[in-house]
Amino acid sequence: MLKRRNDILHAPASALWNPEAVAVIGASDNPNKVGGRAIHYMQRYGFQGRILPINPQRTEVQGLTCYASLEDLPEVPEAAIIAVAGDAASDAIRACADMGVSTAIVMASGFAETGAQGRALQDELVRHARTAGMRIVGPNAQGIASFVSGAVLNFSTMFMEVEPMDGPIAIVSQSGAASVMPYVLLRERGLGVRYLAATGNDADLGVAELALSIATDELIRLILVYVESLRQPAMLAQAARIARERGARVVLLKGGSSDLGAAAAASHTGALAGQDAALDAFLERHGILRARDVHDLVNAAALFVQGLPVREGRAVVMSHSGAVGVLCADAAERAGLPLAGLSDATIEALARILPGFATAGNPLDLTASLLGNGAMFSQVLDVLGDDPQADMFLIGVPVAGPGYDVPDLARTAARFMTSHRKPLVVTAPQRSVRAAFEACGVPTYVSETDAIHALWQYAHSDALHCAEEVSLPPEQTSVPNGLLDEAASLNLLQRYGVPVVAHAVCTNAKEAASIAQTFGEKVVVKGCAAEIPHKSEHGLVHIGVSDARGAAENCLARLASLGVREPRVVVARMERGLHEFMLGVTVDAVLGPIVVIGEGGTLVEIRSDVVSLLAPFSVEDALTALRRLRIAPLIDGYRGQLALDVEALAQAAVALGNFAIAHRTSLVSVDMNPVIVMERGKGVVVVDAVVEFKEPA
Amino acid sequence: MLKRRNDILHAPASALWNPEAVAVIGASDNPNKVGGRAIHYMQRYGFQGRILPINPQRTEVQGLTCYASLEDLPEVPEAAIIAVAGDAASDAIRACADMGVSTAIVMASGFAETGAQGRALQDELVRHARTAGMRIVGPNAQGIASFVSGAVLNFSTMFMEVEPMDGPIAIVSQSGAASVMPYVLLRERGLGVRYLAATGNDADLGVAELALSIATDELIRLILVYVESLRQPAMLAQAARIARERGARVVLLKGGSSDLGAAAAASHTGALAGQDAALDAFLERHGILRARDVHDLVNAAALFVQGLPVREGRAVVMSHSGAVGVLCADAAERAGLPLAGLSDATIEALARILPGFATAGNPLDLTASLLGNGAMFSQVLDVLGDDPQADMFLIGVPVAGPGYDVPDLARTAARFMTSHRKPLVVTAPQRSVRAAFEACGVPTYVSETDAIHALWQYAHSDALHCAEEVSLPPEQTSVPNGLLDEAASLNLLQRYGVPVVAHAVCTNAKEAASIAQTFGEKVVVKGCAAEIPHKSEHGLVHIGVSDARGAAENCLARLASLGVREPRVVVARMERGLHEFMLGVTVDAVLGPIVVIGEGGTLVEIRSDVVSLLAPFSVEDALTALRRLRIAPLIDGYRGQLALDVEALAQAAVALGNFAIAHRTSLVSVDMNPVIVMERGKGVVVVDAVVEFKEPA
Repeated sequence: MLKRRNDILHAPASALWNPEAVAVIGASDNPNKVGGRAIHYMQRYGFQGRILPINPQRTEVQGLTCYASLEDLPEVPEAAIIAVAGDAASDAIRACADMGVSTAIVMASGFAETGAQGRALQDELVRHARTAGMRIVGPNAQGIASFVSGAVLNFSTMFMEVEPMDGPIAIVSQSGAASVMPYVLLRERGLGVRYLAATGNDADLGVAELALSIATDELIRLILVYVESLRQPAMLAQAARIARERGARVVLLKGGSSDLGAAAAASHTGALAGQDAALDAFLERHGILRARDVHDLVNAAALFVQGLPVREGRAVVMSHSGAVGVLCADAAERAGLPLAGLSDATIEALARILPGFATAGNPLDLTASLLGNGAMFSQVLDVLGDDPQADMFLIGVPVAGPGYDVPDLARTAARFMTSHRKPLVVTAPQRSVRAAFEACGVPTYVSETDAIHALWQYAHSDALHCAEEVSLPPEQTSVPNGLLDEAASLNLLQRYGVPVVAHAVCTNAKEAASIAQTFGEKVVVKGCAAEIPHKSEHGLVHIGVSDARGAAENCLARLASLGVREPRVVVARMERGLHEFMLGVTVDAVLGPIVVIGEGGTLVEIRSDVVSLLAPFSVEDALTALRRLRIAPLIDGYRGQLALDVEALAQAAVALGNFAIAHRTSLVSVDMNPVIVMERGKGVVVVDAVVEFKEPA
Repeated sequence: MLKRRNDILHAPASALWNPEAVAVIGASDNPNKVGGRAIHYMQRYGFQGRILPINPQRTEVQGLTCYASLEDLPEVPEAAIIAVAGDAASDAIRACADMGVSTAIVMASGFAETGAQGRALQDELVRHARTAGMRIVGPNAQGIASFVSGAVLNFSTMFMEVEPMDGPIAIVSQSGAASVMPYVLLRERGLGVRYLAATGNDADLGVAELALSIATDELIRLILVYVESLRQPAMLAQAARIARERGARVVLLKGGSSDLGAAAAASHTGALAGQDAALDAFLERHGILRARDVHDLVNAAALFVQGLPVREGRAVVMSHSGAVGVLCADAAERAGLPLAGLSDATIEALARILPGFATAGNPLDLTASLLGNGAMFSQVLDVLGDDPQADMFLIGVPVAGPGYDVPDLARTAARFMTSHRKPLVVTAPQRSVRAAFEACGVPTYVSETDAIHALWQYAHSDALHCAEEVSLPPEQTSVPNGLLDEAASLNLLQRYGVPVVAHAVCTNAKEAASIAQTFGEKVVVKGCAAEIPHKSEHGLVHIGVSDARGAAENCLARLASLGVREPRVVVARMERGLHEFMLGVTVDAVLGPIVVIGEGGTLVEIRSDVVSLLAPFSVEDALTALRRLRIAPLIDGYRGQLALDVEALAQAAVALGNFAIAHRTSLVSVDMNPVIVMERGKGVVVVDAVVEFKEPA
């Protein structure tokens, strides 16, 4: 038995991405078959390890000695590709595990993607492998590839079509297609890709763990991730943290809608948060940029690869066409990319360079005088580059032709990037113009919107923070089941520091009347029964009543008529404040509880003005998030109104988050609406709440 | 004097786009000078008319006889290019006009773009030309070009770079750069452009009129328009109407923010409507699609050119990758493009074709079985093409290579378009794959989002209607000046059928108290003074008061202390309804009044939930627009609440629109907030209004 390496994590150059020997079970002499392609690629792309084809029908495959079975191999391979089908695949996986293979790349399909039976088989094989110490990529995986070691354990046809080149980018994807789509876009822009993985069913060694295995590679500047259902978020967070610490970035594209929608159907908060709120909150917390499609995933890649300082991300737009400046300014406004205000010194210096009729500003119009005066371009760039407020540059070249020395402009732009170390991109509709700039290493875009968006992505990604790793407190083990009634909900939340309304639960009207006196002249009386969460629809909510007794009698009778066995009412203090908010919790199966904060009241779902935070979080996090609400102007006092006690609201949100974390696997949802917010210093009070726990299994 | 044709409108083949003779004033022998390039282009691109260079320094220019002056010409040219500078340009314009030239293409700059003096000169020259019967394109214009006649009266370098080809697209732009950017994007996609114009200062024969001159050309399927400030909207509307009648479309890109912002600064409605609301309302009314950037302007061009029936615009997505289907479905949801529900017959037929493990659905996953079974693609397409619910097709080809016969797939797709006459596009990240489909005439996209968006643009453009031409009623000639006080505003609006609250104006508290009795137990009392429009900020609004006398005294005293000479109060009936809306008017200098309808109340600007309609409009228009509000769910009764009298709200909006049209040049703005909407059948009532007219000049 030869040596075995299992230190996959944090060791990108080791076993996984550069195995000493690779067995190919189901090896084919035909490079266009699944069992032949990896062998072809490994030989073609310079893999230095040993390739061990296995096929009982052959003694030689693609010029290599072929073995009849695993047992016949001269050594235990570090990696094995499983390219046989059906039961043979399962047998091969088990045999590899038992033999001491480190990683199996299971290309065979017929597992979880086919239904429950396939899933059960897959689970069993993963358990078997894990017990034996083997990791599985797949099954149903296109495979992994390292274009630095030549270990291309991958059957995609793409590397026949578009020649690989080692470079500072990694692609990890659940889907095979979604791994090669960004690959080809990057390669056609001249950017190199070092690692590429497509994990198919993603059953064991998945996308997050692969990202983590790559994050420590000093050469990698950008990790692109495609998932349809994210597993192991903590590993992805760790990968993002490790990458960010050395200036590299993670960009993620999620295909399809999340599972949150279904899980949270019972709660208003779930519907309100939207299906992707948990993922957005997770990505934001861990400084991972989100892309909306494959094009977007690679849009800023050239900027990430160059890694020039972002500074404050203020852009300067210049062009020899006024319209391009106008269109770029429009795009910048849409994207939220700030344009730099130029210093007086810059304006004066530009005025000395530009022709008399041109005005120095941002966007800067070089006018057609650029024609026949290429030196002007260089002078202008130097002046702008020295302005401390000019952080990033977009140059629009809408038209070229006689009089424009485009290669010279391109060389000037490239020189500028070296001398001033400020990001610079070019937008040009004409292919030949882009090619001239690309040849000098200047990132180019067809559309001004894409160019502006790339600058925004680059600056925004830089501005994101990556939260510290937190260790979660232990969960509460003794928890209620199902829907809690209002009183039980309020009491439970109060124990976690959520400020709830002064209230009492009464079983008869006389008691209600007596308690009501202690709450003031007017009170709130509500029917209280877990089975009737939508109280107002049943006439069970009486607000601002002076006849508490009558209201209680009414509620008790109504509850009885609805079949509630032990009718009760909640009598509560009548609270008035400046504005109604809502706080809620919905729980993502993978990412855990998120707290939703927003405008409350009866129109909460129509207003749909909410922000979401992954629990737990700090008061500062909550305050920052609150500023993103449409109703944020109310916070500091809108049009002469009083300022809101937003600090107290943030504290209540934090308390709710802590409650959710303490019940993270048992909780279904929390709806608190309205949360009445008083003037600054006077607090907030939750006047209604419904907590729902899972039903016992 | 030779014959002269002035029938520019509706005669695309005539004078303007194919003049019998073109004089070039300031002709140059150098094709790379402004005065030389049009001559070069016209000779190169087969212009059949006579080219008449004028330059006192030369006897020959680019092989043509050169004349010393206009007077020396052997004929009166239909068109003249003015390529001389400064005073010579002005002199040449005047001379051309006096001589009987039909159209002058003024490339010379130094006019309105340089300031007030230049603008005055420009205005004077336009007046001079118009009087003489000559039209001016420009000044400061890159010029016009017809690639069918070869009349390229245009100095852009672009036609040196990218060879023209006649085709069914026209580009009319104020900016030179913005005319050639879409040109190069179209040409690099293999699409032909017949007309191209860049009007520079757009002082006379402008973008809208040029579009109109093109709209009747039966070959033109698509007119692309770029403006920074739209002039002559009625002509553009007419062009869109003529084009639409024969199935052609207009797409418009506007650069820069509109002037509305500044003009409407005084009114809440103006701020609320947003800078571009008037333009959006105008474009929607006239069935003109709006693009957000140059890329977007040409994004669906291939679909427009093919002109296949849209039917109901339901798309089918198919790919041999599940991820592409997922990503396309995501993009379709974002774009609002409906995916077709396939009929049972289609599902069954597909099940017979697809491999066992694939599921027939939309998106349709052909799986990797497409490899080595190209016939399946054709069979599947035929089945889908026969489904009456499948209107448009998107095929995702994320990867190619050995086993994929891409040229055959491309031929199959092209055949399908011919046989089924349904729009079909392909998305493929790989350049060579796109090229194979493009070669067969199949529109292709790099990104799935762009492909989906193109289908949406094409379907949406088809669904737009083009309003009938309306003749506006005459304007009111006797109108007030400046800001009207509440009472005057309400009374004026009431005369146009706007339902306003029952109210009275009183000058003393006793009178107020007496009137109040006729309005019920509780009333509203407000201070009334035109100079104090923001009443509540001065404590001048008393709602639901029983002591009308006290409230009136308070208001009168407060008004006196604010320096109001004749203090008055409005006493009004206390109105209660289901929800507060707002209605307002803001007036665009070019497009006229727009009516803004939205949620009302004190938080109106925070909520910012409004729709805008170009006045005048119908009740149906208003009802349709209301359904676009975020608060639209309230209309039919939300969560057991009563339905709103939305019909009455729409009627009030129509009345307001008619009022605005009757005062279209004198009105500045109207703010009516709140407009209290009652339950269905009970009407609406405007309880506060401010009308502002222009101050006398």
